[in-house]
Amino acid sequence: MSGRLGVVVLAGERAEGMRSALPPALHPVAGVPAARYAIDAALALSPERIAVAVADEAEARAALAINGPRFVPQPEGTGAGAAIARCREALAGCDAVLVAWGDAPLAESDLLRALLEARGGAPLAVAAADGRAGPWCADAAWLWERMETAGADPPRSLASEAPVTVAAEATVIGRIDDRASLAAAETAMRRRLIAGHLAAGVTFRDPATVYVDRGVRLAAETTVEPNCHLYGATEVAAGAVIGPGATLRNARVGAGSRVLHSVVEDSTVGARTVVGPFAHVRDGAAIGDGCEVHNYAEVKNSAVGDGVKMHHFGYLGDADVGAGANIGAGAVTVNFDGRAKHRTHIGARAFVGCDTMLIAPVSVGEGAFTAAGAVVTRDVAAGALVAGVPARELPRGGA
Amino acid sequence: MSGRLGVVVLAGERAEGMRSALPPALHPVAGVPAARYAIDAALALSPERIAVAVADEAEARAALAINGPRFVPQPEGTGAGAAIARCREALAGCDAVLVAWGDAPLAESDLLRALLEARGGAPLAVAAADGRAGPWCADAAWLWERMETAGADPPRSLASEAPVTVAAEATVIGRIDDRASLAAAETAMRRRLIAGHLAAGVTFRDPATVYVDRGVRLAAETTVEPNCHLYGATEVAAGAVIGPGATLRNARVGAGSRVLHSVVEDSTVGARTVVGPFAHVRDGAAIGDGCEVHNYAEVKNSAVGDGVKMHHFGYLGDADVGAGANIGAGAVTVNFDGRAKHRTHIGARAFVGCDTMLIAPVSVGEGAFTAAGAVVTRDVAAGALVAGVPARELPRGGA
Amino acid sequence: MSGRLGVVVLAGERAEGMRSALPPALHPVAGVPAARYAIDAALALSPERIAVAVADEAEARAALAINGPRFVPQPEGTGAGAAIARCREALAGCDAVLVAWGDAPLAESDLLRALLEARGGAPLAVAAADGRAGPWCADAAWLWERMETAGADPPRSLASEAPVTVAAEATVIGRIDDRASLAAAETAMRRRLIAGHLAAGVTFRDPATVYVDRGVRLAAETTVEPNCHLYGATEVAAGAVIGPGATLRNARVGAGSRVLHSVVEDSTVGARTVVGPFAHVRDGAAIGDGCEVHNYAEVKNSAVGDGVKMHHFGYLGDADVGAGANIGAGAVTVNFDGRAKHRTHIGARAFVGCDTMLIAPVSVGEGAFTAAGAVVTRDVAAGALVAGVPARELPRGGA
Repeated sequence: MSGRLGVVVLAGERAEGMRSALPPALHPVAGVPAARYAIDAALALSPERIAVAVADEAEARAALAINGPRFVPQPEGTGAGAAIARCREALAGCDAVLVAWGDAPLAESDLLRALLEARGGAPLAVAAADGRAGPWCADAAWLWERMETAGADPPRSLASEAPVTVAAEATVIGRIDDRASLAAAETAMRRRLIAGHLAAGVTFRDPATVYVDRGVRLAAETTVEPNCHLYGATEVAAGAVIGPGATLRNARVGAGSRVLHSVVEDSTVGARTVVGPFAHVRDGAAIGDGCEVHNYAEVKNSAVGDGVKMHHFGYLGDADVGAGANIGAGAVTVNFDGRAKHRTHIGARAFVGCDTMLIAPVSVGEGAFTAAGAVVTRDVAAGALVAGVPARELPRGGA
Repeated sequence: MSGRLGVVVLAGERAEGMRSALPPALHPVAGVPAARYAIDAALALSPERIAVAVADEAEARAALAINGPRFVPQPEGTGAGAAIARCREALAGCDAVLVAWGDAPLAESDLLRALLEARGGAPLAVAAADGRAGPWCADAAWLWERMETAGADPPRSLASEAPVTVAAEATVIGRIDDRASLAAAETAMRRRLIAGHLAAGVTFRDPATVYVDRGVRLAAETTVEPNCHLYGATEVAAGAVIGPGATLRNARVGAGSRVLHSVVEDSTVGARTVVGPFAHVRDGAAIGDGCEVHNYAEVKNSAVGDGVKMHHFGYLGDADVGAGANIGAGAVTVNFDGRAKHRTHIGARAFVGCDTMLIAPVSVGEGAFTAAGAVVTRDVAAGALVAGVPARELPRGGA
Repeated sequence: MSGRLGVVVLAGERAEGMRSALPPALHPVAGVPAARYAIDAALALSPERIAVAVADEAEARAALAINGPRFVPQPEGTGAGAAIARCREALAGCDAVLVAWGDAPLAESDLLRALLEARGGAPLAVAAADGRAGPWCADAAWLWERMETAGADPPRSLASEAPVTVAAEATVIGRIDDRASLAAAETAMRRRLIAGHLAAGVTFRDPATVYVDRGVRLAAETTVEPNCHLYGATEVAAGAVIGPGATLRNARVGAGSRVLHSVVEDSTVGARTVVGPFAHVRDGAAIGDGCEVHNYAEVKNSAVGDGVKMHHFGYLGDADVGAGANIGAGAVTVNFDGRAKHRTHIGARAFVGCDTMLIAPVSVGEGAFTAAGAVVTRDVAAGALVAGVPARELPRGGA
């Protein structure tokens, strides 16, 4: 393991069996392109240099979303040998070369590290299972000389070298080369990720029907009911219950909250808040603590204070809602006038009546009350009561 | 395989273990009655005649929805022998008789063809697995004579004949005789169908939680997320992403479209259109290209032009909507007056404001604008602005 | 099996691997705390006395919701021996002591009965699998004396006694000690429960993705589509089709009804009624026969008569709806005025127009008609037509 390490991740080869324009290494597995697993496993070894052989540089850069490695285009139809040869310049000065497959996402850094250690001073070490080769590691000088003399395909020509071998599991070094093996890799990765969450104290009523992306974080004592999809950079705090039937994408859910039969995207939900069933929180919405966002409630790009109730269908878009406000059934922030979007301000403890249309930009004062069916075109003063189409202020009844 | 082939599909026997009024052969497997698989496998051999032994002719005709075969009622409680004997007349003139079980949907035409070939000139060939018999094929003259002399149950009496046997897999010739074996057949059939879609280049994040009926067609490079139900004659074009949580029934979805947490039934969706979450498109709706049919949007029996936006809750029923129109939150086509349904016409680029009620029959002209909360009882001219209850035309503001 | 039987259910021990404040025995399995299975299995033997060793009495009482057993607090960090010793007083007068693990929910009364029978007059009988001990039964006098002399941990010290052993399956006596074993127990229990429903004549398109709590009752000839969650005391009558994508919690669904992509909680649905997609029936709602409660329809704490149609979004809360009424899209019972909830009465065959707001308390007479967008603040007479904001009576048109 001495010397400077260079890594090649092969991510440009296509596979006929995929019937896809995209190389297998760029197909997502648990929410990230397969090749990210090989790259991240290699980066855990702190290599001196890392090159990723790709079919199309722009496509790969966009998919892999990582800046460290050098992307080396690999001409269509060429094999691993040609790809590695093209990476030689990017690895200049390295003493050892580690080659990993971008379409084999289940191989982890432990295996790569074992390869480096097992090689010692030998020219070559190969991870193998059932006679099939996985990632391998070679002395750089030896490799480059061999490749010049022995032809273009190092894995095949090197196989006759009787190298040091490291035994691996077939599923771990298995490559994706059709949609069935892609699905199998996804399933294996999901099991691995969920095993980690189980060990950390998360309850899954059925681990087989929960889909958790690689970047998801779940606190101990959370429960995930079946048929849930936790995607992207989702984060769930202790005691929350997710599902059944929830989709979270880049969502942050606070302690003790519930999300069921709902979709939360690119948004945060506070503590002890219930979302759903059939709610949709999206596009940078921030829901407070102790809120009730229930049936057919849609909230977009809005800041919703603590204790707000929105129990029935309705739409809050581009709105700021004060604590304790009540949003009636069918109430809508009319945020788009056909040309531009405008914001709506709803004060604390305001009561927005059923079917009230708030024509933005507009403001409803603290503790104000809009009657059912009101079309609010002008600001409503704090504590005022408005009604009608368009809404007019009325004296507020006693009691 | 020489001679004229007659086929008997046994679909009338009941099974105690099903606890069902319906014979096992009529219970659906992957969306079609089990017996359809045996009938279709037999039809692939181009038989001269085909008879289906059924318990109740009307019930079987309705379930099987096929015209070619002759339906031969089988009296309650009689076994396979009596059923085959009753089919004799329907197979008059045939030289060979192939008997298949309607409650064994996993046996394919390959197995039936192998049976015919293996029999050659022998009187009888039987497909068998683990000592249990599956479909069999006999010389017609030999069969009918045997049945007259050997009693009513040919499979049992024929078993002593030491016939030609064709080895089959136990799961393939297995018959449905309780709900557990029905579920097992469904699961096996689903795996088989999905294996075909995977080979054709479709991505399934989890093949175990997608339910695809036999008649569904999926283009290469489509993705089906988990927890989706693709039923009936559904068809999805390349690059579309279905799910999670979508149910499509007799739906056609165009290239590059997305359908998530939604239901699409007996309708078509164009290309690059997003449906959902929580949308319902039904009853002959046709959505154009590049549309956005989002949260709680219901569209029924309507033609929706390209680029139409319907982002929030609302209902389009019996409507024609021009390209580029915008349907606000809570807008409704009031298509039913308590007596009859009426149509609504919405012109291209019209802006139907939030909570607008369009009292059909009514027409909103091209580029017209209805204010939030308007109740539109009369036609709106192209470019006009209407507001109020009932809606009246207002001068359209500048800018 | 002679003599008076005393039972100890050990439900107070914590497991490090759970990373949970709650003992494994109180984590739910198929909707009830794991320890309920051991308690109920023991109760089936009609024991003289039963003691449950718990960590926190109030917590355990609330979770287990059962009155018969005596709850015996077990000090934090003490093992099974100390717990059993503390139960001695509660079992005073018993001749035999049966010890069962509250965190091993898959052991059934059959196994416990076999233990009692196998012991006969011997001092000790232990159920064992793969060298691991499960529940055991001992002569009371012998046990209490042993425990005084042999130290605090009877299972361990008793293991050297070469007792009578009853062979059990490892999965059956397996204890929950981390979230992975909790999930495995849940899966095994679900399979067992669903096997029972399959045998009783229920169709599951995919038994692997239906979640059925222990208390659920399903009639023969019902069908449960995938991705359904049947929780609590749910009951479904013959011919009903549940799912896909339905969640029922303490719901009663009548014969021939359908519930799809919907949530029904603490409510009843009559016969031949369709609920969904995307409906929510909750909090003591009672829907009649032949109703259509479709897209985004929310019904709460209401009595809905036969043949009522509520096809589109809208909200019925605290309402009584007569037979044959029609509830238009966007219609809302405005049941909350910011201070209290009020009821709404809708007469038989009334037609509540789209977007009608019914300001409760209010009554709409039989056969009355409210126009689209009406805000109904006063009672509407039978047969009357009202329209406007606020709604006023209009002469009813001819025809």
